[in-house]
Amino acid sequence: MRSVCVIGLGLIGGSVLRAVSAAGREAWGATGSALDAEAARAEGHAVELSVEEALRRAAAADALVVLAVPLPALDGVLRKVGELAPGCLLTDVVSVKAPVADAVARYAPSARFVGGHPMAGRSVSGWSAGSARLFQDAAWVVVADEDTDPAVWREVAELALDCGAHVVPTTTSEHDAAVARISHLPHVLAAVLASCGADGGPLALALAAGSFGDGTRVAATRPELVLAMCEGNRPALLAAVDDALGKLGAARGALASTGALRATVTAGHAGRAALEAQRAAGRVHLVVDLAGEDALEELRGLGTQGGRITGFEGTAVKAELPVLAE
Amino acid sequence: MRSVCVIGLGLIGGSVLRAVSAAGREAWGATGSALDAEAARAEGHAVELSVEEALRRAAAADALVVLAVPLPALDGVLRKVGELAPGCLLTDVVSVKAPVADAVARYAPSARFVGGHPMAGRSVSGWSAGSARLFQDAAWVVVADEDTDPAVWREVAELALDCGAHVVPTTTSEHDAAVARISHLPHVLAAVLASCGADGGPLALALAAGSFGDGTRVAATRPELVLAMCEGNRPALLAAVDDALGKLGAARGALASTGALRATVTAGHAGRAALEAQRAAGRVHLVVDLAGEDALEELRGLGTQGGRITGFEGTAVKAELPVLAE
Repeated sequence: MRSVCVIGLGLIGGSVLRAVSAAGREAWGATGSALDAEAARAEGHAVELSVEEALRRAAAADALVVLAVPLPALDGVLRKVGELAPGCLLTDVVSVKAPVADAVARYAPSARFVGGHPMAGRSVSGWSAGSARLFQDAAWVVVADEDTDPAVWREVAELALDCGAHVVPTTTSEHDAAVARISHLPHVLAAVLASCGADGGPLALALAAGSFGDGTRVAATRPELVLAMCEGNRPALLAAVDDALGKLGAARGALASTGALRATVTAGHAGRAALEAQRAAGRVHLVVDLAGEDALEELRGLGTQGGRITGFEGTAVKAELPVLAE
Repeated sequence: MRSVCVIGLGLIGGSVLRAVSAAGREAWGATGSALDAEAARAEGHAVELSVEEALRRAAAADALVVLAVPLPALDGVLRKVGELAPGCLLTDVVSVKAPVADAVARYAPSARFVGGHPMAGRSVSGWSAGSARLFQDAAWVVVADEDTDPAVWREVAELALDCGAHVVPTTTSEHDAAVARISHLPHVLAAVLASCGADGGPLALALAAGSFGDGTRVAATRPELVLAMCEGNRPALLAAVDDALGKLGAARGALASTGALRATVTAGHAGRAALEAQRAAGRVHLVVDLAGEDALEELRGLGTQGGRITGFEGTAVKAELPVLAE
C-alpha cells in the first residue's frame, strides 16, 4: 500500500492522517502549528519536525503527498515540493481546483499531480476537530481533466476510498462551478442573512428559531477559511452570486408588484426536492475499464450525471449512477 | 383555569390543544380536515363536529379562542367568530400580526383580541407532526400595542406559558418587521439557494454537503404555508429583501472589483456571533407590575431589548433581560 505524507494537520489534513493510518497505510504529517503537531503526536501519529523533513521522507519512499493547507499558504509549500520532492505523487484537499492546478504548474511542474476535494467540513477547525470517520460516506472529487494520467488518478481515488469516501470524477472547471453553487454561495448567503437578522436587534434575535438558525449556521465558520475558499473561486462564485442576485431580484420585483412569491417558492421547493430525490434514488451499478482509451472521458460523464466510484477490481472501476425521475 | 377552544388542528393548533390539555385545562378543537379530526379524536381529544359548534361552546364557557388556521382561511373563520362568539377572548398563532389585527377589526370587532405568535415550526405539517412539547423553551410573541387591554394580554400570555413557552411582548409592527428578518427572509433565501444549486445539475447536488443542506432545509416546507406567511407580511418582507439585496449586491461588487469578501464575511460572522452571545447571555431578573399605569409600555421596552416573561405572581409579571456585551 502506498505510504502517505500529509502537509497541514487541521480539520481535513488531520482527518486524512487518521483515516489512512486506520486503513493500515504508513503515514506521516507535518504542520506549521505547534498545537496541532503536539495533539497529533499525543495520539500516536508520526509528525515530522518540519515540512522539509516530511517531503524528503516522501521523496525517498515515493509516497503520495497530500496538501492540506489553506489556499493562501499553498504557494510556499509547493515551492518546497518543487525543491525537495519534485517528481512526487501529489494531490490536495483544498476547496478550489483551478488555482491549485495553476500553482502546481508554476512551482512543482514535474509532480505527478491530480487534484482532489473531499466534501466534508465542520464549522470548527484544527486537529482536535477532526476524526478518522470525517469522510465516511462523503463525496470526494478526484479531478479527471483531458491531460490527467489515469495511473495517478487511481492513486488519488484509492486514497479517497481508503478514507471511507466515494469518488466523484469531474473536471477542474466543472468542479469549481459546482462548489461555487453548493458550498461558496451558501456561505455568502448565510453571511448576508446573519447580517440582516442582527440588524433587527435583540428583539429579532430573541425570536430567531430554526429557519434563521439553520440558514446562518455556516456563518460561524472562521472568516479566514471562508475568505480563502470564496475568494479563491472568484470567477465561478461571481457567476453563482449573479444567479442568486437575479433570482432574489425577481422575488423582490414580484413581491413589490403583484405580491406573489409563488415562482420563487415553488422553484426553491423543487430544487430541494431534487436534492432529496437524488440522495434517495436507486442506483445502477456499472463498470468502466481504466485501461480503456476513453476511460477518463467516461468517468467525467458519470460525474456530470451524479455518478460516483465505489471501488476498483483489477483495472475495472466500479461505479454507481442514480436513477433519476424525468 | 380558563378553558381553551382551538380552531385549526394542524402542526401548531394541534400542539396547542395537546399542550393546554396536558396543563390541565378544559380544551376542545375544530378543524376542516377530516384526517386531523380523526387523528386528534383517536388520541382522546375533544373535537367538535364543526367550527360553529366549537365557537358556540366557547361563547357559552367564556373560553379563550385560539385561531390556528393559515392566513388565507382566517377571514372565513373570523366571520363565524363575529356571528357566534362576538365578545369572546380571542388570540391567534398566525405568523403575521398586522393582517390578523385588520381582519379581526373587520369581522369580529367586539372580540377581546390580543394577537400571538409562537416561534416554533417544523418543515412537516398536520396534526401528526405536532406534540405537547413543541413550544417548550420557545419564544411566543404576545402583542402589546398602545390600545391592548392588560387583562386580555395576561390571558394570552398565560396560555403561552402553559404551553411551555416564554413570552416576548412587542408591538404588531415591531413583530412583523422582526419576523420578516428572521423567519420570512430565511425562507426566501433558502428558496433562492435551492434553485441555484439545482441549476448546477446532478453533479452539483452530488457534491452538496452540510452548508447547502442546512441553507436549503426550510425550502422543503409546503409552498402554500411559506406563501401564506411571506405574502401576508409583504411590506416588512420587502424591506428585509431590499436589505439582503443591498448586502448581496455589495458582496458582488467587491468580488468583481477587488475580489475581497472580507466586509461581507466578517459582518455575517459578527451577526451569527451576536445570536449565539444573546442565547448564552446571563440574565437579570426583574418584575413589572401589570396594574401599573405604564405596564405595557415597560413590557414592550423589555421585548425590544431581547427580554422575556417567564411567569406571573399576583399582578407581578416576572421578566428576564439578557446581559449583552457592548
